[in-house]
Amino acid sequence: MRDSYLDEFFTFLRFASISTDDTYKEKLVECAHWLVEKLNRIGLQAQLVSTPGHPIVWAKNKHQPGRKTVMIYGHYDVQPPDPLELWDSPPFDPVLRNGYVYARGSTDNKGQILSHILGIQETIAEKGDLPVNLHLIIEGEEEIGSGSLPGFLKKHRDSLGCDIVVVSDTGMIARGVPTLSYGLRGVTACEVKVTAAKMDLHSGVFGGAVANPITALARLLATLHDANGHIAIEGFYDDVKPLEDWERDAWKKLPVDADKLILDETKAPALFGEKGYSTFERLWARPTAELNGIGGGYQGQGTKTVIASHAMAKLTFRLVPNQEGDKVLKLAHKHFEKHLPPGVTMEITDGHSGPWYLTDPHSAFGEAAQHALKEAFGTEVALIREGGSIPIVSQFRDILGVETLLLGLALHDCRAHSPNENFPLENLQNGIKMNQAILQEIGRARS
Amino acid sequence: MRDSYLDEFFTFLRFASISTDDTYKEKLVECAHWLVEKLNRIGLQAQLVSTPGHPIVWAKNKHQPGRKTVMIYGHYDVQPPDPLELWDSPPFDPVLRNGYVYARGSTDNKGQILSHILGIQETIAEKGDLPVNLHLIIEGEEEIGSGSLPGFLKKHRDSLGCDIVVVSDTGMIARGVPTLSYGLRGVTACEVKVTAAKMDLHSGVFGGAVANPITALARLLATLHDANGHIAIEGFYDDVKPLEDWERDAWKKLPVDADKLILDETKAPALFGEKGYSTFERLWARPTAELNGIGGGYQGQGTKTVIASHAMAKLTFRLVPNQEGDKVLKLAHKHFEKHLPPGVTMEITDGHSGPWYLTDPHSAFGEAAQHALKEAFGTEVALIREGGSIPIVSQFRDILGVETLLLGLALHDCRAHSPNENFPLENLQNGIKMNQAILQEIGRARS
Repeated sequence: MRDSYLDEFFTFLRFASISTDDTYKEKLVECAHWLVEKLNRIGLQAQLVSTPGHPIVWAKNKHQPGRKTVMIYGHYDVQPPDPLELWDSPPFDPVLRNGYVYARGSTDNKGQILSHILGIQETIAEKGDLPVNLHLIIEGEEEIGSGSLPGFLKKHRDSLGCDIVVVSDTGMIARGVPTLSYGLRGVTACEVKVTAAKMDLHSGVFGGAVANPITALARLLATLHDANGHIAIEGFYDDVKPLEDWERDAWKKLPVDADKLILDETKAPALFGEKGYSTFERLWARPTAELNGIGGGYQGQGTKTVIASHAMAKLTFRLVPNQEGDKVLKLAHKHFEKHLPPGVTMEITDGHSGPWYLTDPHSAFGEAAQHALKEAFGTEVALIREGGSIPIVSQFRDILGVETLLLGLALHDCRAHSPNENFPLENLQNGIKMNQAILQEIGRARS
Repeated sequence: MRDSYLDEFFTFLRFASISTDDTYKEKLVECAHWLVEKLNRIGLQAQLVSTPGHPIVWAKNKHQPGRKTVMIYGHYDVQPPDPLELWDSPPFDPVLRNGYVYARGSTDNKGQILSHILGIQETIAEKGDLPVNLHLIIEGEEEIGSGSLPGFLKKHRDSLGCDIVVVSDTGMIARGVPTLSYGLRGVTACEVKVTAAKMDLHSGVFGGAVANPITALARLLATLHDANGHIAIEGFYDDVKPLEDWERDAWKKLPVDADKLILDETKAPALFGEKGYSTFERLWARPTAELNGIGGGYQGQGTKTVIASHAMAKLTFRLVPNQEGDKVLKLAHKHFEKHLPPGVTMEITDGHSGPWYLTDPHSAFGEAAQHALKEAFGTEVALIREGGSIPIVSQFRDILGVETLLLGLALHDCRAHSPNENFPLENLQNGIKMNQAILQEIGRARS
């Protein structure tokens, strides 16, 4: 790896490109300009595309007929660095310690997208051109929901025509183990509010004669699961596609002790999940109903002898193939209506949905990705799904009609979104190799 | 009623004397000082007695041998005003609307104790002295369990010797119906905290493999009652004394439709309570387990896909004769330990306890109270119990060896502890008369 690469990585990291905070608007523009200059310098044609939010960087090589067209996607925006006091070094003043670069955005997503940029630079320097037609799209709103991306994709749908999308914004199953993520869970949300009296009541004066909305809500929420962690909503699992045998086998053989990993990381007193499934199956292939928040009555210091007027809970369902968010919400409504305790009324507000994603890792492009990963890392490839959601992957499918290869370079202890985020230089190096290999492999893939 | 009385009431109400929140410590001291000055001005000898908590106001007339000695008790501290957004006018900026004064503490207890102060003022102004020896005790910790009062009573036990205590901190069964309360429920409190991971987790990355503490808490709290509103803690009802026949009959004949009253006042969609008991029985003679607050995870706008590290609920039990708070808490701990779902740890913090109270409304002082009430209000007296707790009543019995007459002036729709607390000027007026009558009646009572 060239010495200048680390300097460039540090320069990229010094931009405090915090998309959620308008104070940093200019920093995002500066960061995007720096990318455009860098991409033009290495031989691409790069431009800044303004959006209602932060600008999108769009770079291409000279497209030639008869070649595959690849879109590489990444983002230059980062999460806020709070809480600052937990950082060992300033979040926007990168340092290299023991082979790891520490800075906000080092893993998510600057290190990963830079490895693609540097891979492209190497290939062009060696061979004068890439083996494929390229669109490189680096957006500035990923951490705030990619609000402008669908509009951009729709507006430029014809120019952006491509055969496959490559994204490095997911995780490796373990350090040194190249990983292809071929599935993601979806998500859908709702909020349940239970009301008894129109105002808070004195629990001595009224206690015993009217329903307590916190008690009613607790009783209602307790019906969501059975004692084995199975979701008790009627019909909830009807559309769940069972795990395929090859997946179950592959996940059993992954070189990671999932149980130990989760316990070490969370410090939970024990694992808990749906009976009859392994930890990886629970995380990647089984849906969940998670209460993300609950509130009602007095939450301050000490005691307040009050019966609250209302109480609410926020709920998200993680969805798996072939569940549909709207259908799941309808079943949930029905369940809550059926189990609502007496003496209260209920109001349900539905939130946003994002679909699950599943692609075939044994397709021609999937095989190309596996070859490239093996070449870059020199070892067997892990085929996994992930438990989280990446809505843009579904947008690529819906708007551009193409599949996405998720070739993540994030390690489990990278602390993305947390203090002391870090990225190993080893993964920058391997990422450069991976970019070169994947473009080669796609260039000669059959499909 | 003199014009100045309303001004003084408003001044008294403007002190934000919130005893549970240390931020307001100085406001309580200011309020207590204001009372001392007022009481000295009307001809009593008043002083501020400091305590480990908020100060106690103690005023006397000149005691003379051969007279009955009466202690009048009240409190100048108030409940927190939250939720502020539900108040039609600011809680500490009193207003008079349609004959009602709106402010936090207007009924509980500033309006009621002020009517005694003004009654005393009138009697002294008219007659130069009271017909009894008086101790007027106004404390600042009633809303947080009266922690310093027992120490004060014990320390000054000899000086505080008296024949009877008079307290106006309870309710009237209906507007215009004078009411003697001869029984109270007790209370005991605890807080339950359930923890899974040591930090908040991404619900996509970890959801399904570790317990959700909000779900676990909901499942735990749902075990507190059965579907009929009966408390499911083993042994909880063992010590409950059944209602006597004369009480059940008297309550049936009260000039109030309890069900309609509660529904009108609370606007709850239906009544809900323990099966097999009337509304008055549920409120006055049956114990409860009420969740006063619950909190965990994200409670802001929209969605946050997080699995909280922990969740907590605040709980109070209302107790009836012959239940004991400590025993009930022990049973509750046992219940929670038995029903704690897997994958989480639990921490229970016990709060303050106050015992129930029961006295004979047909004793000599009880009869004196009934005469005074009839004289002040000009109509038949209702004999009731109350659902709330006044722990100090048991302390007066235990430490000073005296019974307490509860001559409440609170109306059902006074909204004590709730937004838009209010007190009718009519009750301030009748309270002044009642104070004058009760001191007369006690002065000539046989016992």
